[in-house]
Amino acid sequence: MFNKVLIANRGEIALRVLRACKELGIPTVAVHSTADESAMHVRLADESVCIGPPPSRDSYLNIHQIVAACEITGADAVHPGYGFLSENAKFAEILEAHNITFIGPTAEHISVMGDKIEAKRTAAKLGIPVVPGSEGGVSDEGEAKKIAADIGYPVIIKATAGGGGRGMKVARSEDDLLVALQTARSEAGAAFGNDAVYIEKYLGQPRHIEIQVVGDGAGAGVHLGERDCSLQRRHQKVWEEANSPALNEKQRNEIGMICANAIAEMGYRGAGTIEFLYENGEFYFIEMNTRLQVEHPVTEAITGIDLVHEQLRVASGAGLSVTQDQITFEGHAIECRINAEDARTFVPSPGTITHYHTPGGLGVRVDSGVYAGYRIPPYYDSLIGKLIVHGRNRVECMMRLRRCLDEFVVDGIKSTLPLFQDLVQNPDIANGDYDIHWLEKYLANHAA
Amino acid sequence: MFNKVLIANRGEIALRVLRACKELGIPTVAVHSTADESAMHVRLADESVCIGPPPSRDSYLNIHQIVAACEITGADAVHPGYGFLSENAKFAEILEAHNITFIGPTAEHISVMGDKIEAKRTAAKLGIPVVPGSEGGVSDEGEAKKIAADIGYPVIIKATAGGGGRGMKVARSEDDLLVALQTARSEAGAAFGNDAVYIEKYLGQPRHIEIQVVGDGAGAGVHLGERDCSLQRRHQKVWEEANSPALNEKQRNEIGMICANAIAEMGYRGAGTIEFLYENGEFYFIEMNTRLQVEHPVTEAITGIDLVHEQLRVASGAGLSVTQDQITFEGHAIECRINAEDARTFVPSPGTITHYHTPGGLGVRVDSGVYAGYRIPPYYDSLIGKLIVHGRNRVECMMRLRRCLDEFVVDGIKSTLPLFQDLVQNPDIANGDYDIHWLEKYLANHAA
Repeated sequence: MFNKVLIANRGEIALRVLRACKELGIPTVAVHSTADESAMHVRLADESVCIGPPPSRDSYLNIHQIVAACEITGADAVHPGYGFLSENAKFAEILEAHNITFIGPTAEHISVMGDKIEAKRTAAKLGIPVVPGSEGGVSDEGEAKKIAADIGYPVIIKATAGGGGRGMKVARSEDDLLVALQTARSEAGAAFGNDAVYIEKYLGQPRHIEIQVVGDGAGAGVHLGERDCSLQRRHQKVWEEANSPALNEKQRNEIGMICANAIAEMGYRGAGTIEFLYENGEFYFIEMNTRLQVEHPVTEAITGIDLVHEQLRVASGAGLSVTQDQITFEGHAIECRINAEDARTFVPSPGTITHYHTPGGLGVRVDSGVYAGYRIPPYYDSLIGKLIVHGRNRVECMMRLRRCLDEFVVDGIKSTLPLFQDLVQNPDIANGDYDIHWLEKYLANHAA
Repeated sequence: MFNKVLIANRGEIALRVLRACKELGIPTVAVHSTADESAMHVRLADESVCIGPPPSRDSYLNIHQIVAACEITGADAVHPGYGFLSENAKFAEILEAHNITFIGPTAEHISVMGDKIEAKRTAAKLGIPVVPGSEGGVSDEGEAKKIAADIGYPVIIKATAGGGGRGMKVARSEDDLLVALQTARSEAGAAFGNDAVYIEKYLGQPRHIEIQVVGDGAGAGVHLGERDCSLQRRHQKVWEEANSPALNEKQRNEIGMICANAIAEMGYRGAGTIEFLYENGEFYFIEMNTRLQVEHPVTEAITGIDLVHEQLRVASGAGLSVTQDQITFEGHAIECRINAEDARTFVPSPGTITHYHTPGGLGVRVDSGVYAGYRIPPYYDSLIGKLIVHGRNRVECMMRLRRCLDEFVVDGIKSTLPLFQDLVQNPDIANGDYDIHWLEKYLANHAA
């Protein structure tokens, strides 16, 4: 194991990584900005180093300061948490050049998965299902018809040079195709000066389902089931759960094994998440995140496996603590990301927390770095804490979650607790009946 | 279900019961003494009633005040927690006479199990193993030899009128028996003016192992495995774990099924604990507690079953949520009772908590009613909180527990945290190698 781990992050995830290190008997170094001097992870770490002022580019994103902090403290490994430098291949390379272990995958794997086109190509090669479509631009109507027929309707025509919805047209049948093609081309030409378009399968009401994987870098890989993160606002996950209300055990095992086999074949080292859109029983690869994710605790709740332990183990060469057949899924877990924001307008609400009470009891976990008297600085994300609730089944989990949201007290600033108090009582949520558009529509209908 | 539950208790257990009620959608009434006005359970309950000043006999033990509080608030059921009125048959009867449900067993079952001799007789009749011995006094040497040979050596000779260790002699073989019998008789005669003695099997280094049971009052009963509570100081449990490091699965199932069948046969309603001494593979009944126990969360951790939910269910006639074959035991859990006492002298240390930080993360639960600024009153027990840690196995559980004890901060008063920080690093504890005398011996060797 490592002699000393430097945690190159802040907030709840720094505290979470610190706890895992302490459990494995590894001394920890916290780094922090001048705005984070009184943060919990700084108080609880064995050592701490100030690496600069806010904003993040002058501290948490400052690679040279972090490498210097490793050298000053003698840290031989760095855990990047999520965000910041966690998917920065250059950071991984620089650490390696300094004989410091990056607790994550190789720089090469980070790079491959950081490039959307490369990632999709790699995923397809590894047998991971991707969104079917034309490989490149579609030049004529006959070709478009053939491709669309192969894919199956509805299809979407997108501008090769496009973005922001312009040059995008849906065709629901062959009758629509010609008009859609022509309209997309003409919009694309007008908007981007380039009328090249391509065709992809159109997903109207998909769910976001992701598979948690861990590889040992030496050909062993496991999956830890899925998380359903369909409830999103502006592409930010708000509520995550495991298992997905939409999958059965057979589907879980099938897609899980595809992912486990893929990372084994890649020789992937560390924790990762393979993200999919899911519709009508089919999975479509979006991207792979080569790091720990915010929502990892729901997976920990149903498997009992500490994912940061596994990260530390595989990064140090100790291997995985489990084989696939030892991994079981018990009950149901939901995470709510509680932010320091107005629950209707989502305007950030930094400031001092005057009173703070977190719920507890059986099946309840709150991952947070805040406390009464803590001042949420305006420089970083607005996460107050993550409430993770586990029950023997989804109904029990929801009952417990409702109680916990009722018990949670954050005074002195605004929080998104009221949003979750509404969601937990919503019939669609109770039925698990939602897709990636559900929350945006709900918020539009319940606007301030 | 009930319309409103009054919680006739205080501290962490009042909060714990309140959470279960809220999860099941039942409004709650807190009762409190004048010393507990700012207690957490009072803040979080839907309603609260002050029932008098300390000491407890003028408030938490005042049956008429509690019944009056039910009538004022319209509560149709009372949860007694542990301690106070939880095993008071008269209280159960008076509530029944007022058409208020006592959330616990019948007054008759409380009475039977509250009488040591009656309890042992009932247990034996129900097939629960009891300490073998002479039924009454032993009058002559020949009879003593016969009984001792039947029981097996070592045996202990005890004064029928005795107590405090006087008139007690151990005989390790038939050679010792005559001398032991004569000495015990003469000591008993001198001490109590009555030289009658009886014989029981002598247990030199037993463990305290107890079986958690729940019955529906209509002939269904389940067991939820055992807890090992051998680490005790002055008969107070200090550290409890499940499963016991001393039992294997076959033993667990055997003694568990004996207990489950016994409470089914009794028609027992509610949660209960059948306590045993355990030595050399044999169980010996001590007593049955007809209430929720302090250490119930370790059972909840390994089974996922909320015992207060089950209490509420069976008291309301809704029946158990599980059958025996649905109950499984996952991983290992340990509870530490952290008291406001000096960790060496055990002198109580009431006062105001100035800083309070509880550990969190995967597998960690802290049941406590205190907070920073809370003043621990001198009138009640000195429990600050219970730290319950769960891991996939005992080694992982101990690693996590060590981290949590290191992270836990209670400032302003003395606490027994340092005792647990020592225990978690002790090799005997690491090996699970301890009996009911271990902690007393350890404390004697590490005295202030």
